Amino acid sequence: MDKILLLNGPNLNLLGQRQPEIYGSETLDDVVASCTALGVELGLDVHARQSNHEGVLVDWIQEARGVAVGIIINPAALSHTSVSILDALNVFEGPVMEVHISNIHKRERFRHHSYVSGRADGVIAGFGTDGYGFALRRIKTLLA
Amino acid sequence: MDKILLLNGPNLNLLGQRQPEIYGSETLDDVVASCTALGVELGLDVHARQSNHEGVLVDWIQEARGVAVGIIINPAALSHTSVSILDALNVFEGPVMEVHISNIHKRERFRHHSYVSGRADGVIAGFGTDGYGFALRRIKTLLA
Amino acid sequence: MDKILLLNGPNLNLLGQRQPEIYGSETLDDVVASCTALGVELGLDVHARQSNHEGVLVDWIQEARGVAVGIIINPAALSHTSVSILDALNVFEGPVMEVHISNIHKRERFRHHSYVSGRADGVIAGFGTDGYGFALRRIKTLLA
Amino acid sequence: MDKILLLNGPNLNLLGQRQPEIYGSETLDDVVASCTALGVELGLDVHARQSNHEGVLVDWIQEARGVAVGIIINPAALSHTSVSILDALNVFEGPVMEVHISNIHKRERFRHHSYVSGRADGVIAGFGTDGYGFALRRIKTLLA
Amino acid sequence: MDKILLLNGPNLNLLGQRQPEIYGSETLDDVVASCTALGVELGLDVHARQSNHEGVLVDWIQEARGVAVGIIINPAALSHTSVSILDALNVFEGPVMEVHISNIHKRERFRHHSYVSGRADGVIAGFGTDGYGFALRRIKTLLA
Amino acid sequence: MDKILLLNGPNLNLLGQRQPEIYGSETLDDVVASCTALGVELGLDVHARQSNHEGVLVDWIQEARGVAVGIIINPAALSHTSVSILDALNVFEGPVMEVHISNIHKRERFRHHSYVSGRADGVIAGFGTDGYGFALRRIKTLLA
Amino acid sequence: MDKILLLNGPNLNLLGQRQPEIYGSETLDDVVASCTALGVELGLDVHARQSNHEGVLVDWIQEARGVAVGIIINPAALSHTSVSILDALNVFEGPVMEVHISNIHKRERFRHHSYVSGRADGVIAGFGTDGYGFALRRIKTLLA
Amino acid sequence: MDKILLLNGPNLNLLGQRQPEIYGSETLDDVVASCTALGVELGLDVHARQSNHEGVLVDWIQEARGVAVGIIINPAALSHTSVSILDALNVFEGPVMEVHISNIHKRERFRHHSYVSGRADGVIAGFGTDGYGFALRRIKTLLA
Amino acid sequence: MDKILLLNGPNLNLLGQRQPEIYGSETLDDVVASCTALGVELGLDVHARQSNHEGVLVDWIQEARGVAVGIIINPAALSHTSVSILDALNVFEGPVMEVHISNIHKRERFRHHSYVSGRADGVIAGFGTDGYGFALRRIKTLLA
Amino acid sequence: MDKILLLNGPNLNLLGQRQPEIYGSETLDDVVASCTALGVELGLDVHARQSNHEGVLVDWIQEARGVAVGIIINPAALSHTSVSILDALNVFEGPVMEVHISNIHKRERFRHHSYVSGRADGVIAGFGTDGYGFALRRIKTLLA
Amino acid sequence: MDKILLLNGPNLNLLGQRQPEIYGSETLDDVVASCTALGVELGLDVHARQSNHEGVLVDWIQEARGVAVGIIINPAALSHTSVSILDALNVFEGPVMEVHISNIHKRERFRHHSYVSGRADGVIAGFGTDGYGFALRRIKTLLA
Amino acid sequence: MDKILLLNGPNLNLLGQRQPEIYGSETLDDVVASCTALGVELGLDVHARQSNHEGVLVDWIQEARGVAVGIIINPAALSHTSVSILDALNVFEGPVMEVHISNIHKRERFRHHSYVSGRADGVIAGFGTDGYGFALRRIKTLLA
Repeated sequence: MDKILLLNGPNLNLLGQRQPEIYGSETLDDVVASCTALGVELGLDVHARQSNHEGVLVDWIQEARGVAVGIIINPAALSHTSVSILDALNVFEGPVMEVHISNIHKRERFRHHSYVSGRADGVIAGFGTDGYGFALRRIKTLLA
Repeated sequence: MDKILLLNGPNLNLLGQRQPEIYGSETLDDVVASCTALGVELGLDVHARQSNHEGVLVDWIQEARGVAVGIIINPAALSHTSVSILDALNVFEGPVMEVHISNIHKRERFRHHSYVSGRADGVIAGFGTDGYGFALRRIKTLLA
Repeated sequence: MDKILLLNGPNLNLLGQRQPEIYGSETLDDVVASCTALGVELGLDVHARQSNHEGVLVDWIQEARGVAVGIIINPAALSHTSVSILDALNVFEGPVMEVHISNIHKRERFRHHSYVSGRADGVIAGFGTDGYGFALRRIKTLLA
Repeated sequence: MDKILLLNGPNLNLLGQRQPEIYGSETLDDVVASCTALGVELGLDVHARQSNHEGVLVDWIQEARGVAVGIIINPAALSHTSVSILDALNVFEGPVMEVHISNIHKRERFRHHSYVSGRADGVIAGFGTDGYGFALRRIKTLLA
Repeated sequence: MDKILLLNGPNLNLLGQRQPEIYGSETLDDVVASCTALGVELGLDVHARQSNHEGVLVDWIQEARGVAVGIIINPAALSHTSVSILDALNVFEGPVMEVHISNIHKRERFRHHSYVSGRADGVIAGFGTDGYGFALRRIKTLLA
Repeated sequence: MDKILLLNGPNLNLLGQRQPEIYGSETLDDVVASCTALGVELGLDVHARQSNHEGVLVDWIQEARGVAVGIIINPAALSHTSVSILDALNVFEGPVMEVHISNIHKRERFRHHSYVSGRADGVIAGFGTDGYGFALRRIKTLLA
Repeated sequence: MDKILLLNGPNLNLLGQRQPEIYGSETLDDVVASCTALGVELGLDVHARQSNHEGVLVDWIQEARGVAVGIIINPAALSHTSVSILDALNVFEGPVMEVHISNIHKRERFRHHSYVSGRADGVIAGFGTDGYGFALRRIKTLLA
Repeated sequence: MDKILLLNGPNLNLLGQRQPEIYGSETLDDVVASCTALGVELGLDVHARQSNHEGVLVDWIQEARGVAVGIIINPAALSHTSVSILDALNVFEGPVMEVHISNIHKRERFRHHSYVSGRADGVIAGFGTDGYGFALRRIKTLLA
Repeated sequence: MDKILLLNGPNLNLLGQRQPEIYGSETLDDVVASCTALGVELGLDVHARQSNHEGVLVDWIQEARGVAVGIIINPAALSHTSVSILDALNVFEGPVMEVHISNIHKRERFRHHSYVSGRADGVIAGFGTDGYGFALRRIKTLLA
Repeated sequence: MDKILLLNGPNLNLLGQRQPEIYGSETLDDVVASCTALGVELGLDVHARQSNHEGVLVDWIQEARGVAVGIIINPAALSHTSVSILDALNVFEGPVMEVHISNIHKRERFRHHSYVSGRADGVIAGFGTDGYGFALRRIKTLLA
Repeated sequence: MDKILLLNGPNLNLLGQRQPEIYGSETLDDVVASCTALGVELGLDVHARQSNHEGVLVDWIQEARGVAVGIIINPAALSHTSVSILDALNVFEGPVMEVHISNIHKRERFRHHSYVSGRADGVIAGFGTDGYGFALRRIKTLLA
Repeated sequence: MDKILLLNGPNLNLLGQRQPEIYGSETLDDVVASCTALGVELGLDVHARQSNHEGVLVDWIQEARGVAVGIIINPAALSHTSVSILDALNVFEGPVMEVHISNIHKRERFRHHSYVSGRADGVIAGFGTDGYGFALRRIKTLLA
């Protein structure tokens, strides 16, 4: 089965525990579980990883080259500050979907710009955790 | 059945005929057909309209008050310039999903800002015409 | 009797129905009624029109040339985006008073600038619907 | 009778003597006289003061707390530069109306922003000295 | 004969009636008449239309696809604010010439930028109504 | 015969030799020849000069005072950087037409602003070498 | 005993009376009393003054030269607008500590910049009225 | 005893060894020792950690949830660039005090803005290493 | 003899005592003495005043109307922040010369802009205290 | 006698012939004559040169090294655009005085900044041609 | 032999594998091998390290203090975002050379600024992998 | 032998004589001598020219077309202001290397941007006069 890397950035390990009025009550494990299940349904093997470390995320993106056929990434805070992640994604050749759980355009101004969006094929924000599933479905379409 | 207003802004009537490398080959009729079908599946009655006129779009959004339970809007060029549409949406009380077929963050700088995003519950860009369906599904979730 | 054009822009047809904490509970009909009455008192014939369409507003301003002796305009959302309305007003020769029901300087930053203010003789904001009457009185003074 | 503080800032003591093409020929005494008379008519006791000193204006605004029920202020040049006056007004609890005799939006760019507008309930500009009376009437409405 | 669409935007119906020190005394009918005559001379069939409505202009540009071989457009006030017109022109495949009667670079700063210039093949400003004829001649050259 | 100064700035001596996809294949000699011929037809004596030196261009503009009745200038790169040329043109009293062969508004951002446009009577860009002839015709009209 | 000047700017005379959710319930007298007491403990003679007048604050800072060994200043609103106070402090040779009761970085953008910070040895904000005592202690350290 | 997390960011392990004219001669061990001693005095258990890694700091802040009652953080260089740390602190519920040893407002412009200040309860800069102790005392007050 | 008002703003009373490397060692009394002497020589009666208070400077400028024939002003720190002084000078009808002892263009960026320069007939900076005398001489010329 | 280089930049050769409302009616020869005469009086040998060429001005400034003891320069249009002249002056070791005949701060915004002011010892603007003499006198003082 | 630290930042481990049209086909091992060889020739002991982690790069720079005599660093993506690396380099006392393989000034705007350049002794960009060798040679010169 | 044009811009003729703390003590002749020698070694014929005149540099770059195989240019002050030189280089087809002796990124802000960098293949700054030699070596590589 084609492998998909599902990456979550800083503080997303706390999903469901922090600011539920912004991020809802689902945990990251819940998200991974639904994505994995949806992956099975779509014939995609979802590998999920989370880190608070920019460098670790870069390492994982690099390792996905030649291994995964697509990347779903919620870069969280690093969306706005990391050129390293952008550069790593620039080297990856498959589709990249960027997910934000909240609508970042309704929050502080510095959250309106994402370096990753300059590389991503698609960007979804404010769809709650549904965004991950939609990203996965879109990759399926693109790979078809 | 709950009614959903599916609005498309300027030049989207040409979908499938213009710049296929950006917008793909599906026509607006194709999009409306799939959304309608998906709506039936989800128990949602999709009413689709398109206009090149900002004022007409404002009129339709106003008319949706008390009639539709949600709005899916691709404001196209008007995303970047219309406060009128933003104000009309501010009066509408149900969920609003903003769809862009292409990833506007990879295009000219003036396409990176959308007034509508300041009101929308969710924003999806670069998912091609799949974005409409995902927006519809998300509204279903929000209405549940 | 001298004729005054009282123009209201997008979404003001919903006055009294939307965001009463910002705009109060009077309807546009109420506003027109009081202005008409005050007009009679001041010897001014108030013709009121509202449109959500920039082009229609431009048409009406053009038609007022040689017919009306003054214009009261609440351009609403179009204040911030319409050079067309500014240009139409530039051609009109009588006094132009700009009215905003709420104090636009306390709202989002993009509402702080109005193209129309570069042409208006006077600008009144945050006086609620009283602003229309004061604008009418001021025109009376200017015409005296 | 409810007391209203009518404050005028720097250089307004010269009203009627300076730049009549901008400010008209009425003097500050004329303005105070009409406002006082209108106050009597409305059942409001208008206390008028003028100073060229930011600190004195701040002192007076502070003294109005618990004494006056509303403030009408033409901060003149200090509109654009004084955070002290804004802060003093932030402590005052009644309605605050900001008056500019000329339309500041048609003058130099640095006159387009007023710190006071961030606190004022209403702002009126370019209505000549009529603006003071309209501000008084509006306070009457708000107090009703 | 090859068809050319000659489009004029908001307020240009008043040409010759408004601000003659800026726009001269020729009317729009005069302009259309000379262009039509010049068209005949050049073997081009000039179809002229004017609207104050952005949406109508967009409609007309769309209709020109497959019908006209070139467009001459004076977007007037909409030059500075309309992405919709830009997008419509982006879909048109023939030459597009942008005409401004006055030299917009000598007027208010907001008139210095035109969205349409990002698509136009040529831009002419400050040549008075001669600009239309030169635009027509240039299209003739380009079509040759 | 009235004399017209036709000035070309830096690197235009290479016209037809450099970047033909931007500037076409006509040489500067070709341009001068057509302008001279057209001048004869219009009763204008065209004197053409080219220099890569800002100071030389300033000298020539100064010398044109009292000698030439109009100036056509393509300031090329100096459009964007030379206040000296602007100042020299400010002293010249006849009509000044600014010509750019390519549409500078479609190129790098620093090419969008021209100091000369603040003085020129007309500006033409993107009309290829036709722009020179149109500028000459326009001067003829203005001198009439 | 070494003398310390403790200066408070506009509206701080209202401390404890205004916006207690921002500034707490302690009055300026309370602050002065605690600082004086702490001063005694540290062997420092605290002289406290407050004014709403920029010029008076400048006068006092000038008078402190050769008299006080350090200055603690809460310039309040004048932080953001007064170059005069900065210049007066530039002439004072001892340590200068800047105190803000609230965290100015969490308030309006114009409160983020303080001219005084360009001269102060230390800046403390958001420590409530404790900030004064800490400033006093720090001066003691610096004088040691 | 209530636990306090004392975090120091990049390069602060070199305290006392680098740029003593800016940072003084105390080492980080000295700072930790005084804070620990002061903590004992105040009944607070100070846990000190330092890292040059943004991700590690984020991890530690997350771990402090439910364990520590307050955080003192000197984010050093990361103040100006890390949204991740801001987000982690946004999840922490107790008081957060931000410490900078030098007065960052007197240094390069990019050091004037700190993301952390948007979350911190208090900010202290330029108080040398005394700032840590004052932050600790303030937390004690806030917890009281 | 024609009267000249010589105004000095904040902190200039300390001239000769503060920052001699910037301002030299002459005192304000020295400056006034030389100006008075030069005035006598030129047949001008120099009245010198200094204040740290913006409001006082405004008062004095107002009082000079109809009394003095010219004003020499060194607004010091207030150059950069006072619209009140600009407005007072706008009302004065004689020549106004602006003097800065140091070259403000070589100092902090916020010292590069002076509101007063928008009104002054001449501006002199960096000529040390000689600037006052040259300003006086220039007024003599202008009055001639 | 000490030699002073008096440099005038582009278009100043036309002094007295162009825009007399800005520059007066004195010619450059008049200016040179008065400066020379004043130089003799002050014991300074004034060598005056003018060029429209940036490079020539740079050459002359370089040649003044070791020859002239001071430079008076009116860089005219080049003030705003020439880093070359700034760099040449940076190498010159004596006093440099910058003269502008008109008050550049009252003209177009791009004339408000001068690269040369970052090097000049003094700057004088709006003193008409008197500015040259005052600059010469100031150099005399500085050399004393 | 003097030790040189050769540091490479994020994604440079992929050199030769990614975007060869930008970075060429040499691998990082090739670069290290040539630098080591050149080091031997120059009498310098080159220690090469690469990391995708900002914190690790900071650690290594710190460890180089007192050990290495110079640092060659290609900070890659971190050039544009890392103040931590700048601060670490600020503590290092030997020469620092910054290398970029591509010419960053021809790429996206956010790549034009490098924090490291504010500390580096030299910066070389667009020399391909030759840049490393030239940096090494330059350090040799500086150490001589 | 292949010919290389080595161009130096304004004030570089003074190399070794001006600001040695920035530029070192080598003269331009020294630089040319070493480059010539290195050229011989590399089989390249170095032709060196220097001018303070932008136009002359443009002339020389144009003349190099079809004659030289590469250009090494230190545009000095003109880097920051000359579009003409950029345009001339745009026409040249061989490799262009840009050299700055000092690290321009550590100097005034206006020196951080170079128009030439938008065309150059490589840019080297702060390598002292070694930069020329490295540029020459790099061209050799590129030509290989």
